[in-house]
Order: sequence, then C-alpha cells, then structure tokens
Amino acid sequence: MRLYTYWRSTTSYRVRIALNLKGLAFEPVPVNLVAGEQCSPEYTALNPGQGVPTLVLDDGSVLTQSLAILDYLDAVAPEPPLLPGDPIARAHVQAAVQTIAVDIHPVNNLKVLGRLKAEHGLSAEDGVDWMRHWMERGLQAYQALLPEGPAFSFGDQPGLADICLVPQLYNAHRWGVDLTRFPRLLDIEQRALQLPAFEAARPENQPDAA
Amino acid sequence: MRLYTYWRSTTSYRVRIALNLKGLAFEPVPVNLVAGEQCSPEYTALNPGQGVPTLVLDDGSVLTQSLAILDYLDAVAPEPPLLPGDPIARAHVQAAVQTIAVDIHPVNNLKVLGRLKAEHGLSAEDGVDWMRHWMERGLQAYQALLPEGPAFSFGDQPGLADICLVPQLYNAHRWGVDLTRFPRLLDIEQRALQLPAFEAARPENQPDAA
Repeated sequence: MRLYTYWRSTTSYRVRIALNLKGLAFEPVPVNLVAGEQCSPEYTALNPGQGVPTLVLDDGSVLTQSLAILDYLDAVAPEPPLLPGDPIARAHVQAAVQTIAVDIHPVNNLKVLGRLKAEHGLSAEDGVDWMRHWMERGLQAYQALLPEGPAFSFGDQPGLADICLVPQLYNAHRWGVDLTRFPRLLDIEQRALQLPAFEAARPENQPDAA
Repeated sequence: MRLYTYWRSTTSYRVRIALNLKGLAFEPVPVNLVAGEQCSPEYTALNPGQGVPTLVLDDGSVLTQSLAILDYLDAVAPEPPLLPGDPIARAHVQAAVQTIAVDIHPVNNLKVLGRLKAEHGLSAEDGVDWMRHWMERGLQAYQALLPEGPAFSFGDQPGLADICLVPQLYNAHRWGVDLTRFPRLLDIEQRALQLPAFEAARPENQPDAA
C-alpha cells in the first residue's frame, strides 16, 4: 500500500496511527501541501478533493478521505477493533469522532485559513484566533462526551476517537491553544504517545518533516 | 424516538430521510437555530456540540452528530442498507459522503458564517461568495467520485451518499450556486425527491418551516 501523506496533516496522522495499530506496512509518499503539490493534475486525478491522505491499495484501488480509509482498514484488518460492536456504544464513539472530524478539522483546514487570509483580509493574528476558537469549542464538546474512568477516550485500549484526538491535540499545541482546561485529554495524549503505533506516526517522525 | 431538528438544517434533513427510508417513526422536536435555542443550558446538556440533530431513543440514550446517528440507524434497522457490504465499495461511498459532510457542510455551517460576519467583518456579499465557493468545489469533487450509470450516486437504490447529497443540493439552490455544471447531481436529486421518504423529509414539509 502507498499512503500519500503530509507530515503535519492531522488527517494523514490519523491514518498512519491506524495502519501502525493494525500492523499494516505502507510506503509513505509525501505530498507537500504548502507547496501546493495536492493541486497538480496528476494528484487531482488520484484525489479530486485535492487533499491528503490518499491510500492506494496493492490492487490499484484508490481510497480517499481519512474516515473512509479508517472504516476500510477496520473492515479488512479487524484487530484491534477501532469501534465497539454495540450500536449505541459505537454511536457515542462516532459522535465524539465527528466532533473533531467535522466540527473542528474542516473549519481549521489549511485551504480554509488560506482563503480567509487571501480573499477576506484576515491578518495573521485573526488567523490564530480563528484556529483557536474552533479547537477550544470542539475540544470542550469532545471532553463533555467522554465517560469517566477509562485510560483512553472510551476504553482501556486506543480506538477511533483517540486516533482523531491525538492529531488534533498536536495541532492545538502548535497553535497555542490553552489546554489546561482539558486535563483528561492531555492525560489520554500522554498515554497514547507512549505506544509505538502513535510514536511512529508523529509528524516529527515522518520522512518529509521539515 | 424524538428527533431534535431544524427545518433548514441539512444534517437534520439527512436523518429525517434515513428514518423515513427505514420506516422508523419519530417525533420531531424543533430547535430554532436562528433564535439560538441550541445554546440554551437544557439543550447544551443534551448536545454539548450545540448543534442539531439529536436523536433521543426510547430508552433515553442520546445520540448526536448526523453521521453517527445514520451509522446507528443502519445497524439497528439494516433494511434498506445505506452502504454496500464490500469494504472497497463501501470506502468509495464513504469518501463521497465525506466530501459533503466534511469538505462542504462544516465550512458552510451557520455558526461559521455567523462568526465570519460578526468577528471578521465579512459583508453579506462576502458571505454568499464563501458559501458558493465551498459548495462548488466540493460538489465538483463529489461528482468526480461517482461511477457512470446508476440511477442514484452509487446504485439503483438511494444510499448514504444520496442522503447527504440531496440536503446539500437544497442548500446549493438556496444560496444560488450555479448547478448547470452538475447535471448528474441534478438528475439524482430529481429522482430522489419523487420518493416519499425524501419528499416527507424536505425542509418545507417540516412543522417548523417558516
């Protein structure tokens, strides 16, 4: 499998963690988002949404969108499972996942921030406020959805929610979000980053890290 | 089941369609997003993300986030299925779904547009440009991901992708997006709206339609 990835992309980071957790080998192919490589005609033919990650399977099938890729990986490599089997428990995990994957990440996407600056006159400082606002709001909702007690977000093993949370916290640190209000999330992050699957997936450990 | 919903909310519209397709009865509870009812302490306790929809099951379980609710409904009421069984086919549908649910909808969310106007000085005209830009870009990617031939997005029966597409097209019409570039999508929309499950879920057919 080839994974088109960018070191700082939180959605690429999610897929790297899942591949590692499931013990699936992959060849990383860096796509430099800052240089605009995702908009080349060749890459657009592969991924019409011009984003990362893209996973190309050994049979040539092209999978895009991180949550769709994670769903695929969990179907073909069920161990360890990323979601609980009970439908209500599963819906609770999925809701927390969406709080990050829908309510935070897309609004903070590089292309969104870029358009706000280029077309709507937001300053660098406005951009920082924008990023922090959605992260603070979304992480607050995320933390409110977690049960008390387990070592990770919803259990004693990391799952889909943690796979989305840890990359989002990487971005929160990067943008200077005050995380002292989120002690439970920092605790999960610290525990996750001690695991080899998370450690190897970290942005700074990627071949394209600058 | 009680569904907290807003007539014009495209994510509420998704869940209404799925409930109808699966023949599940529900009691709609209107939440007036424009009046800010989603920010009341009572509603925030139910849904910390302060969004719609929220589905409260007969046993009192509270489900939030439309995609998590759709996943739950497909698990407990598998007919008709919203997704194909084959993992690769399923990932292709999920990728198209995410193109709407992640790349368009959150960036065009009422709270995002509201903040752009209130905090960052976007005019009404800027707001229209903002809405149209992300819809045009996202719908283009969506259309590029569809196979040629089937009556709906991925098959001859409506599925999860159509459940997300039809509400998004409602919003596109509302904001004046030029849809002549998307003949395949308009064709799917026309066919879907002839089905009672879609017709009954339309914004203008809701009790809170203004």
